[in-house]
Amino acid sequence: MSFRATVLTLYPEMFPGHLGVSLAGRALERGDWKLDAVHIRDFAPDRHRTVDDTPAGGGAGMVMRADVLAKAIDASSPDGDPRPRLLMSPRGAPLTQAFVRELAGGPGVVIVCGRFEGVDQRVIDGRALREVSVGDYILSGGEPAALTLLDAVVRLLPGVMGNEASGEDESFENGLLEHPHYTRPQDWAGRAIPDVLMSGNHARIAEWRRGEAEKLTRARRPDLLPPKK
Amino acid sequence: MSFRATVLTLYPEMFPGHLGVSLAGRALERGDWKLDAVHIRDFAPDRHRTVDDTPAGGGAGMVMRADVLAKAIDASSPDGDPRPRLLMSPRGAPLTQAFVRELAGGPGVVIVCGRFEGVDQRVIDGRALREVSVGDYILSGGEPAALTLLDAVVRLLPGVMGNEASGEDESFENGLLEHPHYTRPQDWAGRAIPDVLMSGNHARIAEWRRGEAEKLTRARRPDLLPPKK
Repeated sequence: MSFRATVLTLYPEMFPGHLGVSLAGRALERGDWKLDAVHIRDFAPDRHRTVDDTPAGGGAGMVMRADVLAKAIDASSPDGDPRPRLLMSPRGAPLTQAFVRELAGGPGVVIVCGRFEGVDQRVIDGRALREVSVGDYILSGGEPAALTLLDAVVRLLPGVMGNEASGEDESFENGLLEHPHYTRPQDWAGRAIPDVLMSGNHARIAEWRRGEAEKLTRARRPDLLPPKK
Repeated sequence: MSFRATVLTLYPEMFPGHLGVSLAGRALERGDWKLDAVHIRDFAPDRHRTVDDTPAGGGAGMVMRADVLAKAIDASSPDGDPRPRLLMSPRGAPLTQAFVRELAGGPGVVIVCGRFEGVDQRVIDGRALREVSVGDYILSGGEPAALTLLDAVVRLLPGVMGNEASGEDESFENGLLEHPHYTRPQDWAGRAIPDVLMSGNHARIAEWRRGEAEKLTRARRPDLLPPKK
């Protein structure tokens, strides 16, 4: 059974977006994974297809209604659906590579894309939506975040990436940012590839790369390093 | 002069992607911002249009060549171009709302999308590429990250968002995650809107929201709170 993603959105035309291109797109065509975009507006009760209303207590913007969204969720992910239900939201837990890996090992995912000022808290509670954030910045809605999350997950699915060996030695997989890379030409614009990489000495190369990765992580992301004893 | 984004990529067909839809898409059509996708492969020197080669020192994957990428950058962003040059990369500085705001206030941005195992370090140094990460996870390439960054920036450009009042009271803008939202119906599935929001007492509502935002931030993202004295 292949990985199945269901996205609930007010902009189904944003999907599959960039996931329809390149490796992810070819895997989608082959059926190695599935993607359904569900239009939340199809579950609005009135002929104006209203999905939002003004915030209780006042304030700017509009809030997505609990009743409409719950209907959309219940239709797309009935009781017994084993897939986790996420809500893309800047209030959520930051997305990590560990969670990406967990999702990729599961049956799929149901993703609710918020829009407007936010989503009624009662449907988040009532449908046990797990809030996930792709980063500490504000997007126009949950759609770009959902596409980003799915890109990270899909590349880990069996058969999607050409070179299975890649994906091991990368940033975050070992708790460090990745070391610098070099390739031909050996001299470019007066800059040479570091001698050690041309030495053929694999132990020295591995040591150099580890040292560069540590140096880079210390400089840019000391928060990723284990606390000093 | 409107905001101009130039994206260097091996997948120009991924753009404008979701940025061609909704508010960002209509603003793009109106010319409120511009987006050019430049195909890096057009700058390859050989008839096979090679852009990558094996990593110096060995290892899995392929590395994007410095000479090819430098030509693409020089053609797209000649000397004197005031726009910052970014490289989307998990090794980069985490994207923040403050940087998004800085970009939105400037003339535009040049974004290089990495692919494969990485980009030759010499072109990063030689063309002063600023490495930016959208989050601590691995994507198939820089394209989903570039689209995410541009979405965050474009929504702040003048005239793009319908309701200018939105965008002030949001997560990260005041250093806290956003308080919960509610809207009609007042009772849904046995769950009522909190009484305070129906009280009409604006001072009490503001106080309640502030308290909820602090509680949520403490629970989910204590890293965002100022250190205790």
